Amino acid sequence: MTLSLDQAGRQAWQWLEAAAEFSETRDVDHEGVTRRCATGEHRRVLEALTEWMEALGMSVRLDNAANLIGRHASHSPDARTLLIGSHQDTVPHGGKYDGMMGVILPLALVMYLRGNDISLPFHIDVVAFSDEEGTRFSSTLLGSKVLAGTFEPEMLKTTDDQGVTLHAALEAFGCDPTRIPLDRYSPEEVVAFLEVHIEQGPQLEHASLPVGVVSAITGIERHQVKIHGMAGHAGTVPMSLRRDALVGAAEVIRLVDVLCKETKDLVGVVGKIENAPNGVNVIPQTTTLSIELRSPHDEVRQRARKYLIEQIGVALETLDLAFGHTLTYEQSAVQCSSWLTATLEEAVQDCGIEPLVLFSGAGHDGLAMADLCDIGMLFVRCREGVSHHPSEAIEPEDLTAAVEVLVHTCQRLARRQPLA
Amino acid sequence: MTLSLDQAGRQAWQWLEAAAEFSETRDVDHEGVTRRCATGEHRRVLEALTEWMEALGMSVRLDNAANLIGRHASHSPDARTLLIGSHQDTVPHGGKYDGMMGVILPLALVMYLRGNDISLPFHIDVVAFSDEEGTRFSSTLLGSKVLAGTFEPEMLKTTDDQGVTLHAALEAFGCDPTRIPLDRYSPEEVVAFLEVHIEQGPQLEHASLPVGVVSAITGIERHQVKIHGMAGHAGTVPMSLRRDALVGAAEVIRLVDVLCKETKDLVGVVGKIENAPNGVNVIPQTTTLSIELRSPHDEVRQRARKYLIEQIGVALETLDLAFGHTLTYEQSAVQCSSWLTATLEEAVQDCGIEPLVLFSGAGHDGLAMADLCDIGMLFVRCREGVSHHPSEAIEPEDLTAAVEVLVHTCQRLARRQPLA
Repeated sequence: MTLSLDQAGRQAWQWLEAAAEFSETRDVDHEGVTRRCATGEHRRVLEALTEWMEALGMSVRLDNAANLIGRHASHSPDARTLLIGSHQDTVPHGGKYDGMMGVILPLALVMYLRGNDISLPFHIDVVAFSDEEGTRFSSTLLGSKVLAGTFEPEMLKTTDDQGVTLHAALEAFGCDPTRIPLDRYSPEEVVAFLEVHIEQGPQLEHASLPVGVVSAITGIERHQVKIHGMAGHAGTVPMSLRRDALVGAAEVIRLVDVLCKETKDLVGVVGKIENAPNGVNVIPQTTTLSIELRSPHDEVRQRARKYLIEQIGVALETLDLAFGHTLTYEQSAVQCSSWLTATLEEAVQDCGIEPLVLFSGAGHDGLAMADLCDIGMLFVRCREGVSHHPSEAIEPEDLTAAVEVLVHTCQRLARRQPLA
Repeated sequence: MTLSLDQAGRQAWQWLEAAAEFSETRDVDHEGVTRRCATGEHRRVLEALTEWMEALGMSVRLDNAANLIGRHASHSPDARTLLIGSHQDTVPHGGKYDGMMGVILPLALVMYLRGNDISLPFHIDVVAFSDEEGTRFSSTLLGSKVLAGTFEPEMLKTTDDQGVTLHAALEAFGCDPTRIPLDRYSPEEVVAFLEVHIEQGPQLEHASLPVGVVSAITGIERHQVKIHGMAGHAGTVPMSLRRDALVGAAEVIRLVDVLCKETKDLVGVVGKIENAPNGVNVIPQTTTLSIELRSPHDEVRQRARKYLIEQIGVALETLDLAFGHTLTYEQSAVQCSSWLTATLEEAVQDCGIEPLVLFSGAGHDGLAMADLCDIGMLFVRCREGVSHHPSEAIEPEDLTAAVEVLVHTCQRLARRQPLA
């Protein structure tokens, strides 16, 4: 009696529903899921995951950074390890799927492999990373940095809103933060890291595809632009003598939008604007804008930045406005390994699905895991591209499709000689 | 021994310096002047004005709305009255000249008339309006509405920040608010109302002229425009699928600016902008803007509005954005009387000054006084067009020029048969 993909997909749905209940919020459907690192909700979701993993015959351990790792062991001697996982934590009032779906689907994979007596020449370590969002501490990618061996112990001193340090929170959770350096994997023992995540964008939905293969995790840069005009009475200063900072800001917003619309593999936004004095009858004196640019290709982003800053300079000079400009954040893009991307594409085709390759516009644990090993990512369609919101939603049957892709991926990896 | 125009101008400067000291602020040069209706500062400045008026032989009275009125009486039987004045109050941390200069210059005029034995066939009533800015109560144009007979007694119930009603404040000031209706002038007794005011704009400075003649007081309309887009992750939503409310707002700002720059006698501004959720990495969902349009010609303003709303509709539809639009305020323009404008132009020419005619982009007591009588206004150059600010400044010699224009204006009015 074998287990069907449908059964595995349905089980994944039930586990996701159950996991969502471990939340600071009461009414998860309306208030969303809030689950932060090293809290009671974190403890309880790990207890549930442990139970589910153990029922699948997995050996389970909590590492010193509160990552939960369940191993589906290979019978092969000298087996290396395929890491698959995502983060257990959410943003405040987030959804049920961002993170947790990438923990649950590998469990459904293991369930299917067991149920159909499929043996693999590598261990599968399913990881529920303790913290990726950095919602409680300013500790983005905490869990994956620990596994990759790039965690900075200095980070243990950071505190949450209540003044509790990360060190103290991990100790209270039953971890020994001084032993975190021992929790790293060595590159030699790892085949690769795979993550399944909701797309957080609408491309798969628009293409009517349940899953897609990720080519790269985007690079990001953020700028603050402060435009200096001259305040004045909005009735008495003639139009020809005005130096209106907000008129300059409008030009900047337009330039960012046009450049990103015209440039392949570049997205960008002016998300934030502050105007002063911001009175209905006063010519704006100072307008401050954020500019964010993202691209999977660092050279595309950097070339766009150079062009954009030049264009902004020309436009604001024409308007007789001064401006200051600060690069406030920059993170290089991380490429998914081409052999893993190719393997995932083939696995998607194995399922009779057109293999759409897209880049991730959001950051993921893979950013840190890329320091340890080759990485690959599979996206699952989400409704209207919404994430970080209670209305985050997926189609149940897409879970089945994702399990099927994972099964084919494992089988293709198993046939690979050498494994990586 | 006659009095020179220079002497009158210098006296005006000294009076203005003295009047500025009656302020809630201590360091007037840096903190500006704050003098609100029916306060201790109002009382003390009226005591000083009374002393200066009485020294000029004027009869002085306080009306029931706290307007101070000093009469320089004519010896002619059946003389009518030329009203000249401006407001004593300021915005918080305002300047020394907005308002008070229009009270002091008529006193310098009376001083010159007396000093040179110039008699006129009309009385001159110099008015220090109690409240024009509406800074303490929401009582804009309080003083002038009382003289024009358009004051609404309902307004007496409005309160200041401390919960004190206008009624109580006027009583505490020694007025009897129930007798306010008796303080109106009748149209038959009035020749006209003249006001001298700083320009609050840079046109006279740019033309190197000390004074200018006002053709009209601007009409104003204000709108709130709320643009509805779709929030989303700034990294994951493809550019082609974005509905970015702030990109729409940028179009609106540009349309307002271009239309006003291309339309004669129209000025306008987007002064206020609120963006939500206003995060550096979130596509803007909702952006709310104010639009203000001003013109001395109501039909110009209304035609511009119609065109603008149409253009906004087209632009936002192209961007797949919805919007709502509310007219929040509308005040028609008030024309200065052409015979008074002509008289003022001739008087300016009498002084050897090129008569520049400009409209007032700001509101003034004339808006209310126009309901009583013909109105005329003379602008005096102010430094860099700045007003409502501690750095508000004028050139001392421009006071002399303004006194000279007033003298010639009175002499021309005196020669007029009939007077109006």
